[in-house]
Amino acid sequence: MDEPVEAVAGVLARQLDVRLAVAESCTGGLISHLLTNVPGSSDYFLGSVISYANQAKIHLLDVKPETLAIYGAVSRETVLEMARGVRQLLSADIGISVSGIAGPGGGTIDKPVGTTWIGLSAVGLDRAWHFQFAGGRLEIKQQAAGMALNLVVDYLQQGILDQSMPVQDG
Amino acid sequence: MDEPVEAVAGVLARQLDVRLAVAESCTGGLISHLLTNVPGSSDYFLGSVISYANQAKIHLLDVKPETLAIYGAVSRETVLEMARGVRQLLSADIGISVSGIAGPGGGTIDKPVGTTWIGLSAVGLDRAWHFQFAGGRLEIKQQAAGMALNLVVDYLQQGILDQSMPVQDG
Repeated sequence: MDEPVEAVAGVLARQLDVRLAVAESCTGGLISHLLTNVPGSSDYFLGSVISYANQAKIHLLDVKPETLAIYGAVSRETVLEMARGVRQLLSADIGISVSGIAGPGGGTIDKPVGTTWIGLSAVGLDRAWHFQFAGGRLEIKQQAAGMALNLVVDYLQQGILDQSMPVQDG
Repeated sequence: MDEPVEAVAGVLARQLDVRLAVAESCTGGLISHLLTNVPGSSDYFLGSVISYANQAKIHLLDVKPETLAIYGAVSRETVLEMARGVRQLLSADIGISVSGIAGPGGGTIDKPVGTTWIGLSAVGLDRAWHFQFAGGRLEIKQQAAGMALNLVVDYLQQGILDQSMPVQDG
C-alpha cells in the first residue's frame, strides 16, 4: 500500500533535517492534523497558525493590511506573506500556507468557491500556486490539504536530488 | 440524526455572540479542522495556534518556560496558560487548549500515553480538566478533540442558561 503523503513528507523532512511550519486559512487545521497523525512528527513539525480571521493573518503572520486590502485574503501575495510569516514566527526551515474559498458561501465571479492559493517559503525560495478545486466544503479542504502536502514532498524531493548530486559526481 | 458537537458549538457561539480561539498540542489541528467543517464558522472561529514545539508554546502563547520545566507540557498549569494565551493573542472571548500524549511514544509511568489536559479560558473563568484516553494515536486525538468541543458546548450552554435567567425571573 502506498504511504499517505503526510508520512512521505515526514520521511523526507527527517532525511533532510528540516523543520516545517504551516499557516492555514481555508484548510482550517487539516494539514496540521494530517501531519501530526504520523507518529514522531514532533521531530520535524514545529506548529501552525490557523489564521481564519484576517486579524490573525495580520497580527500573527505579519501579512500586510495593504496586501489583504489590494489583493484579498485569497491571493498569491497573501499566501506568500503567510508562508514567510509562519516560517519566521516558528523559526522553521519551510513555511507552507493555504488560503482559499471552501464554500458554500464566499465565492465571487472572480474567485468562485474552490479557488485556492498555496504558498511555500524556504531559504532563498518563495513560490505560490493557484488551484481550482470542486466539490463540497470538506472535499475542497481535503483536496487543498493533500495538494499542499504534495507540493512539500515535491520540494523536499528536489532537496534530496540536490544533495545527492555531489555523490553522483564523486 | 444528532448534529455533530462542532455544529452545536457553532450554533451556541452564534447565539451568544462569542468568538473562539484554540491552542492545540496533541490534537494537532483536529479541533480547528472540525470547527471549520461547519459552514459559516468564520463568523465565530478566529483561529488557532498549533503549538507542537515547546518554543511555539512559549513564544506564541506566552506559556512560561518555568511552567514547562516544573509541570511539563502535559499539565493543568500549561493548558491554563495556553488557553489564556490564545484567548489574548487572538482577542477571543473563549480560549480552548489541549495538551496530551497521543503516543505511541512519549508516555511515562506518571503520564502514560492517552494522558490529556484540556483548558478553557473566558472572562473571569479559567478551568482545566484531566482525562485518560485509550486507543491508538488517531483515536486519542479524536477523543481529546471531541471532549474539548463537548466542554465548550457545556460552557456555552451554561451561558445560555445564565442569559435566560432574567427572562425567567421577569
